[in-house]
Amino acid sequence: MSEKIITAAMIAIGDELLSGRTKDKNISHLADMLTTAGIDLKEVRIIGDEEQTIVAAVNELRARFTYVFTSGGIGPTHDDITAEAISKAFDLPCEHDQKAMDLLGSVYKARDLEFTDARKRMARMPRGATHITNPVSTAPGFTIGNVHVMAGVPSIFQAMLDGLLPTLETGTVIQSTIVECPYGEGTIGEELSDIQNRHMDTVIGSYPKFDGRNYSTQIVVRGREPARISEAAREVEDMLERTRLQRAGS
Amino acid sequence: MSEKIITAAMIAIGDELLSGRTKDKNISHLADMLTTAGIDLKEVRIIGDEEQTIVAAVNELRARFTYVFTSGGIGPTHDDITAEAISKAFDLPCEHDQKAMDLLGSVYKARDLEFTDARKRMARMPRGATHITNPVSTAPGFTIGNVHVMAGVPSIFQAMLDGLLPTLETGTVIQSTIVECPYGEGTIGEELSDIQNRHMDTVIGSYPKFDGRNYSTQIVVRGREPARISEAAREVEDMLERTRLQRAGS
Repeated sequence: MSEKIITAAMIAIGDELLSGRTKDKNISHLADMLTTAGIDLKEVRIIGDEEQTIVAAVNELRARFTYVFTSGGIGPTHDDITAEAISKAFDLPCEHDQKAMDLLGSVYKARDLEFTDARKRMARMPRGATHITNPVSTAPGFTIGNVHVMAGVPSIFQAMLDGLLPTLETGTVIQSTIVECPYGEGTIGEELSDIQNRHMDTVIGSYPKFDGRNYSTQIVVRGREPARISEAAREVEDMLERTRLQRAGS
Repeated sequence: MSEKIITAAMIAIGDELLSGRTKDKNISHLADMLTTAGIDLKEVRIIGDEEQTIVAAVNELRARFTYVFTSGGIGPTHDDITAEAISKAFDLPCEHDQKAMDLLGSVYKARDLEFTDARKRMARMPRGATHITNPVSTAPGFTIGNVHVMAGVPSIFQAMLDGLLPTLETGTVIQSTIVECPYGEGTIGEELSDIQNRHMDTVIGSYPKFDGRNYSTQIVVRGREPARISEAAREVEDMLERTRLQRAGS
């Protein structure tokens, strides 16, 4: 079975995410959606509304990963600087896109609202960018190169992603099996490490739980080949059974 | 009034955060706590359990900010590689710390559990590191240089931070005032931008809300000098009143 690996990074942009004022909801949504689609999210950065920081992050991450997704900073106010920063990162002029101007112009006309300069800011994007449709509030996101620029408002981010994701190249989906372990990590750590070493085509993660009194562990076996996952998971289950018998006997 | 600015970055470590399997709870908690303490959180990265990625992130961020906080990867299993990676970043040996060995050893003795090699992993830290107390489950976090390494389990992360934070240098607290605006960003964007330009010692953020039918905006004025914040906020309120009268008259 040949594996195709597609990777991604996300950049969540906005001072409000770093001050604790707003709890981000887009990161975990994107993580869920990409995992399901077979795209490996490898890194997430949360950064403020600072042009240089955005430019540096975009340029580093677009070189390292198949796709970069951004959220935030594409509204009509002065602190919405994402379109300009992305243009700088690509060394392209940031312009009022004619198709976006037409879209927004007709919406404001229909609502009998003035198409102010602030509203026109939402039509700005790097020259040559293509639209990401916004079915919620019209103002589009955009794609330039391998960078997909979306809104920060979660309902709009999600709607944009729904439209975008089917157009992207996806890889072999990572599958996983969960084995619930009634012991703490300290009890099973060594044997689990041995199992991992014998099954290098899977990634075995262990996640401690502590209910205030007792430890338990969720063991997750991940991989791209179901048969390999099953083999590793069976070894984990055998190990847990041995541990149980040992404890019962001692 | 002289301002003291203390900055920070956070690195949340763990494959499970990127796969969507676990929703991070530590980032927003840290953001809240640092903002309250007067430490500016400037960047957050979520990365996987990969040594090279951890080393690169730690070395970049510890050079750029006053403090770096990490969460995750300090448990007893094979995928807990944070202590080793931080040691590499500082070019220090990663050793079993004697004080941590004593602490953990006596806990397992009292619980009549074997002090396994896996459990001993939790005593490993870079040579010369100092402990961050773990009142929940004993195994300490550690501080090396300006990097503070804490657990990923939220209850333990929070308890560690509670003990650590009072020992850190803090800056002038950023204060903020919120002005609720019944109009969308497109209506007020231009005037808000003018106000921002006249009040460069504050940072004016605007956060759109969309209830499925109508737009409104929360305007947040942030700064370190209360008098300046008040002046800028008053201008925002005057602008909203002008907008209201204009709309009533039209």
